[in-house]
Amino acid sequence: MSQRVLIVMGSDSDLKVMKGACDALDALGVEYEVRISSAHRVPDKTARLAREAAAGGFGAIIAGAGGAAHLPGVVAANTVLPVIGVPIESGGLGGVDALYAIVQMPRGIPVATVAVNGAYNAGLLAAQILAAGDPELGRRLVAYRESLAAQVEKKDDDLQRLGVAGYLAGRA
Amino acid sequence: MSQRVLIVMGSDSDLKVMKGACDALDALGVEYEVRISSAHRVPDKTARLAREAAAGGFGAIIAGAGGAAHLPGVVAANTVLPVIGVPIESGGLGGVDALYAIVQMPRGIPVATVAVNGAYNAGLLAAQILAAGDPELGRRLVAYRESLAAQVEKKDDDLQRLGVAGYLAGRA
Amino acid sequence: MSQRVLIVMGSDSDLKVMKGACDALDALGVEYEVRISSAHRVPDKTARLAREAAAGGFGAIIAGAGGAAHLPGVVAANTVLPVIGVPIESGGLGGVDALYAIVQMPRGIPVATVAVNGAYNAGLLAAQILAAGDPELGRRLVAYRESLAAQVEKKDDDLQRLGVAGYLAGRA
Amino acid sequence: MSQRVLIVMGSDSDLKVMKGACDALDALGVEYEVRISSAHRVPDKTARLAREAAAGGFGAIIAGAGGAAHLPGVVAANTVLPVIGVPIESGGLGGVDALYAIVQMPRGIPVATVAVNGAYNAGLLAAQILAAGDPELGRRLVAYRESLAAQVEKKDDDLQRLGVAGYLAGRA
Amino acid sequence: MSQRVLIVMGSDSDLKVMKGACDALDALGVEYEVRISSAHRVPDKTARLAREAAAGGFGAIIAGAGGAAHLPGVVAANTVLPVIGVPIESGGLGGVDALYAIVQMPRGIPVATVAVNGAYNAGLLAAQILAAGDPELGRRLVAYRESLAAQVEKKDDDLQRLGVAGYLAGRA
Amino acid sequence: MSQRVLIVMGSDSDLKVMKGACDALDALGVEYEVRISSAHRVPDKTARLAREAAAGGFGAIIAGAGGAAHLPGVVAANTVLPVIGVPIESGGLGGVDALYAIVQMPRGIPVATVAVNGAYNAGLLAAQILAAGDPELGRRLVAYRESLAAQVEKKDDDLQRLGVAGYLAGRA
Amino acid sequence: MSQRVLIVMGSDSDLKVMKGACDALDALGVEYEVRISSAHRVPDKTARLAREAAAGGFGAIIAGAGGAAHLPGVVAANTVLPVIGVPIESGGLGGVDALYAIVQMPRGIPVATVAVNGAYNAGLLAAQILAAGDPELGRRLVAYRESLAAQVEKKDDDLQRLGVAGYLAGRA
Amino acid sequence: MSQRVLIVMGSDSDLKVMKGACDALDALGVEYEVRISSAHRVPDKTARLAREAAAGGFGAIIAGAGGAAHLPGVVAANTVLPVIGVPIESGGLGGVDALYAIVQMPRGIPVATVAVNGAYNAGLLAAQILAAGDPELGRRLVAYRESLAAQVEKKDDDLQRLGVAGYLAGRA
Repeated sequence: MSQRVLIVMGSDSDLKVMKGACDALDALGVEYEVRISSAHRVPDKTARLAREAAAGGFGAIIAGAGGAAHLPGVVAANTVLPVIGVPIESGGLGGVDALYAIVQMPRGIPVATVAVNGAYNAGLLAAQILAAGDPELGRRLVAYRESLAAQVEKKDDDLQRLGVAGYLAGRA
Repeated sequence: MSQRVLIVMGSDSDLKVMKGACDALDALGVEYEVRISSAHRVPDKTARLAREAAAGGFGAIIAGAGGAAHLPGVVAANTVLPVIGVPIESGGLGGVDALYAIVQMPRGIPVATVAVNGAYNAGLLAAQILAAGDPELGRRLVAYRESLAAQVEKKDDDLQRLGVAGYLAGRA
Repeated sequence: MSQRVLIVMGSDSDLKVMKGACDALDALGVEYEVRISSAHRVPDKTARLAREAAAGGFGAIIAGAGGAAHLPGVVAANTVLPVIGVPIESGGLGGVDALYAIVQMPRGIPVATVAVNGAYNAGLLAAQILAAGDPELGRRLVAYRESLAAQVEKKDDDLQRLGVAGYLAGRA
Repeated sequence: MSQRVLIVMGSDSDLKVMKGACDALDALGVEYEVRISSAHRVPDKTARLAREAAAGGFGAIIAGAGGAAHLPGVVAANTVLPVIGVPIESGGLGGVDALYAIVQMPRGIPVATVAVNGAYNAGLLAAQILAAGDPELGRRLVAYRESLAAQVEKKDDDLQRLGVAGYLAGRA
Repeated sequence: MSQRVLIVMGSDSDLKVMKGACDALDALGVEYEVRISSAHRVPDKTARLAREAAAGGFGAIIAGAGGAAHLPGVVAANTVLPVIGVPIESGGLGGVDALYAIVQMPRGIPVATVAVNGAYNAGLLAAQILAAGDPELGRRLVAYRESLAAQVEKKDDDLQRLGVAGYLAGRA
Repeated sequence: MSQRVLIVMGSDSDLKVMKGACDALDALGVEYEVRISSAHRVPDKTARLAREAAAGGFGAIIAGAGGAAHLPGVVAANTVLPVIGVPIESGGLGGVDALYAIVQMPRGIPVATVAVNGAYNAGLLAAQILAAGDPELGRRLVAYRESLAAQVEKKDDDLQRLGVAGYLAGRA
Repeated sequence: MSQRVLIVMGSDSDLKVMKGACDALDALGVEYEVRISSAHRVPDKTARLAREAAAGGFGAIIAGAGGAAHLPGVVAANTVLPVIGVPIESGGLGGVDALYAIVQMPRGIPVATVAVNGAYNAGLLAAQILAAGDPELGRRLVAYRESLAAQVEKKDDDLQRLGVAGYLAGRA
Repeated sequence: MSQRVLIVMGSDSDLKVMKGACDALDALGVEYEVRISSAHRVPDKTARLAREAAAGGFGAIIAGAGGAAHLPGVVAANTVLPVIGVPIESGGLGGVDALYAIVQMPRGIPVATVAVNGAYNAGLLAAQILAAGDPELGRRLVAYRESLAAQVEKKDDDLQRLGVAGYLAGRA
C-alpha cells in the first residue's frame, strides 16, 4: 500500500499558501492528510502527530509556518521521517525570518527546506521521497517533468509566432 | 523566599556566552539554576523543565540558542512565566538567524528577546522581573545602575585628565 | 492592589499598532495607561514618565517606536522596571531598522523586545511579568493559553470536517 | 540491496565542508560516492551524473556549492530523485548568497535545502529518505537520535556536577 | 552584417520585465531574438541555445530570471559570448535572491549583472558590446546619451520655469 | 545676507520625495534653489553646479537619489560645502541600496546622510548648518522644536481625554 | 573666535574608532573636546552636554555609538546644533544595527550620519560646517582636498613606474 | 591591432584584489593598462580617463571600488564603452554596500557587475567582450574553458583514486 503525506501548519491563516502542497500531491495522485497544529499553542498535539506519523502510514511530513517558524523543527525533533519545511511570508521581512528559523537547524535534526511560500515544491519533494518505494509514482513524476518541459516549449512556440507585443497582449 | 531564575541552553557550546547571565545574577545576588536541554534533541525534557519551572520556585526563565533557535519559543509554549530569549551568534550570519527565530514569535506566546549574545542583559532583565516581589533586589538594581553611571563618570574624568592619546596608551 | 502597565509611544501614528497591547491587557483584565511621549521631541517628559512609573503603581512599561526607535531604550535608561519594546514597521525596511534599534541594547540596560508590530504579545508579556505578584492573573493567563489551544483544536476539527477547499471557501 | 547516496560538489575547496555528509553517512552505515563536478565548468558531466544516478543505485543526491550556487538546482533539473542542497559559506556574505541561490527554486524543481555549511544534516536527511525502504536503517536513525539525547543528558549531568565554572574549565 | 542579441528568460511571467531589453534594442536599431527556455525545466534546450548562439550570429546574450536565478549562469557555462544577467524581483525578498544567484558567479564563468529588473540597461549594455564591431551603432549610443542629457536639461528648465509646486501639478 | 540651500536631484521622479526639503526650508524661512541634474546623465553640469555653489551664495547642498545613488557623493567630490544626502526608496530593496551608496563614502569626502526618504530632515539639517551664521534662524529652529513638543503634548492630551478607541475613531 | 567641536561617545571602547574624528580635526586645525557620556547609563549628563554645547562655544557635535546606537539621536534631541552620527561596528552584524539606529531618525530631529566607523569623515564634516564662519578653515579644507588629489596622482605615478607587481611588492 | 582593457581603481588599497583582473588578462594574452583614479578625490581625471578611453584603443573598462562604490558608475557616465564593475569588500558589510552601489545603476547608464571581489571574472568578461573583434582571443577563451573542465576532471579523478580522507590529507 502506498504511503501518505502528512501536511501540518500552525494556523489556518497558512492554509491558503499550504494548499499548494495539496495541489501538487493531487496532481501526482499521492494521498495526504492536512492538520492544523501549532508548535507553540498545542505543543503536545504537535509532538504526538509527529511521533505517530510513521506508524500511521505517513512516509513524509510537510510543515509550514511563518515568523519564528518553529513547527518544522519541532516536528522533525519528534520523528525520523523526512520533514519538509515551508517558510511562509508574513509581515514586512519578506519571509526571511521564517526561512532562517526553518533552514538553520542544528546538527542532528535536519529539515528539508524549500523556497519561501514554496508549498507546491514541498508537495513535489514529498512525492519524490515516496517514489523510492512506489515505481508508478516515479513514472508520474517523470511525466510531470515532461509536461513542464512541454509547457515551456509551447510558450516559446507561441512567443515565436506572436512576437513579444502580441504575446503580452494575449496574456493581458 | 526569593524566586530563582532558570537558565536553559540547547548545547554546552552556548555556555561560554550564557555565562553572562550567571555573572549578572551573581552580581545582583539572585539565585539560578543552569540546565542544558535542547528543544530538538530532548524535546520532552525541555517541555518538562518549562512546565515544572513555576512550581519549582522559578520566577523567570532565560533560554539561549543559535541558528534556528527554537529553544526560547518552545520553553515559552510550556509556561506562562516570562521567558527571556538570548540569540547566540554562530556561523556566518552574525546571529541574525537566531534573532529572527527568537523575536518573531506568533501572537499568543511572547519571548522577551535581548541583543545577540546579550546574556548579561538577560540576567539583568530577569532580575528586574523578579524585583517586583523583592524590594531589596530592586534596591540592588538601582545601585547597579548608579555604579554604571559612576563608571562612565570615572572614565570621562580619566579621559579629561589623560587626553585621548594618553587614555588609549593606558588601555593598551 | 494590582499593578498597572504603562504603554508609551512616540507618535499617534503608532497608536493603531500599539492598540494591540491594550487589547491583550483588556482580555486579561490588566489596567493600563497609554501615553504619547517622544524620546526626541519631548525628551524630558519621556524621562519623567519613566522615572515616576514605579512610584505611580506601574509594574511594567511597554514602549513602541519605528525607524531609529530610541523610545524603549530611553525609557529603560530611566527606570529599573522591566521595559518591553515593540519595533514598529514604517517605510521600506520592513521594521528591521526598529528591531535593531530596540533589541541591540548595550550591556547594563536591557529591553525585552517582541516581534515587529508585536504589540499584542507585548501586552501578554507585561501580564506575565505582573502575574508574579497576582496569582489570579496567573490563572487567567493559563486560561488564555488553554483558549488558544482550544481555538487551534476547533480549527483543526473544522478542517477535518470541511476539507481544504471547503474550509477556504468558508473563510472567503 | 540498499541504495547509496551520491554526493556532488563543484570544487575541491568544498570538500572540507562536504565531508560532514560522509561522516553522517559513515555513522549510519550508508554507502555513498563522492564526485567533483561543477555546474558551470563541466555542465554536461553534471547533467549526466544526475541523469544516471537513479539507474546507478542511488536513492538520493547531496549537492553542495557556494556563491551563485547552481549545482543543486542543475542536478535537480536532471533527475526526479530527491536532491539535498548544502549552501557553503564563502566570501563576506556569510553564505546567504548560496542559501538564496539554492533554496529559492522555481515551481516544479524542488531542492531540499539544509543550513549553511550543514553537510552533516544533509547526510542525515539522505539517510532518513533512504530509510523508507530500509527498516534496519530506520532503526539506526532512531538509535542515533537516542544517542543525541543521551549526549545532552550527559552534558547536563556533568554541568550539574561541575557547575558552570568547573564545566568551562574542563572544556578549556 | 551586424550581430544580433539573444534574449532568454525562464518563464513567460518574466516577459513583462524583459521587454525592457527589447525596447532598448529597438531604440538603438539592434536586432534580437527572444526565447523562453528554463534552466531547470528544459536544461538541454537551454544549453543548446547557448552553444549555438555564436554560430547563429549572436554577439551577446541577455538572460533574465527570478528566485534561485540560474539561467544566466547556465547560459554562460555553455558559451564564451558575453552573457548579461537580469535579476527579476519576485516574492518578498525584493529581488536580492535573484541578484545573489546571478552576480556571485564562481571564478571562470562571469555573468555581467545589471540592476534588479534592469532589463532596459541590459539591452543598452548588449548594444555597447556590439558597438565594438559596429561604429554606426556606437554613434547611435552616443546620440542616445546626448538625448538622455537633453531630457534632464529639459526637465530642469521646466522646473525652473514652473517651480516645484507647478511642476508636480503638471505631472499629476 | 543669508545663505541659501541648493537642492539637487537626479530625476524628476525624485521630486515628490525631495519636496519635503522644500517644505522644511519654507517653514523655517530659508531660501533655496531646486535643480534636476543627474550624476550619470549630465556629469559635467552636476560637477559645475557643485563647484559654483559656494560662490553662488549657497551654504549647504541637499542631494537626493535612489538605487546606486551617486549624486550626493559626486556633488561632495566637487565642493567643500556640507553636502546632505537623501537616500530615496525605489524598487524592491526598500531604499537600502541608496542608503549604502550614499552613507558609505570613503575617507576624505563625507556626505551627511539622513533617513531613507528623509528629505524633510535634510531641510532641517541644512537650516541647522546655516544657523551658525544666522542667529535669527537659530531662534526659529528653537521655536520649531518647541512646536514639535507642543504637538506631542497636544496629542497626548487628546488621547487622555478621548481614550484609545475615541482617538483612533477621530483620526479615521 | 573660532568654534569648537564636541565629540561624544557612549563608552571608552569606542575611543579607538572615534579618535579618527580627532585626527581629522587636528589635521585641519580645529579645536575640539572629547567626552564619554552614555545615552543610557548617564542620560541626564548626556542631555546636559547637548543643551549646553551651543553656549559653550561648540558649533557642531559628533556622537559615535554601536549596537542600538541612541547617543547621536539623544544628543540631537537636546540641541539645534548640527549633530553628526558615527555608527560603530560591534558584534556580528557589521555595524548595520548602529547604522539603522542612527540614520533612520524621525521627522523633526535629523542626525547627519556618516559611514560605519567613519569617524574621520565625521571630523571633516564638522570642519566643513564650521567653515561657514571661518574662511581660513575653508581654505584649509580646499588645501586638504588638493592634498588628497595629489596623493592619488602620486600613487598612480608610482604604479605607472613600478607596475602592478612592483607596486604590490613595495607595499608588502 | 587588438584592443586593450583599461583597469581603474579608486585607491591603491584595492590593487591586491584588482590584480585578479590583470592575472586573467595575462592568462589570455590581452593587453591592459592599470590606473589609480578616485571618483571622489580626482573627479576630473576620472572623467577624462573614461572619455579618452575609446580613442586610446581601449575596448572595455574595468573599474573596482568598495563602500559607496561610485567609480564604475562615474566611469560609465563618461563613455559608451562597456564598463565592468568590481565590488570590493571592505569593512563589516561583506561588500554588499559596494555591490548595491555598483549594480543598481539607473536607466540609461549600465554597469556590468561581477561578484564581490570578482576581479578575475571581470578580466575574463573583458576578454569575452574584446573577442568579438579578435577570433584568436575567442579561441583562447574556448581553450581556457576547456582547461577549467580538465582541472575539474583531474580533481575528480584524484578524489576517486585517493578517497575523501586521502584527498584532504594531500591538500593539507
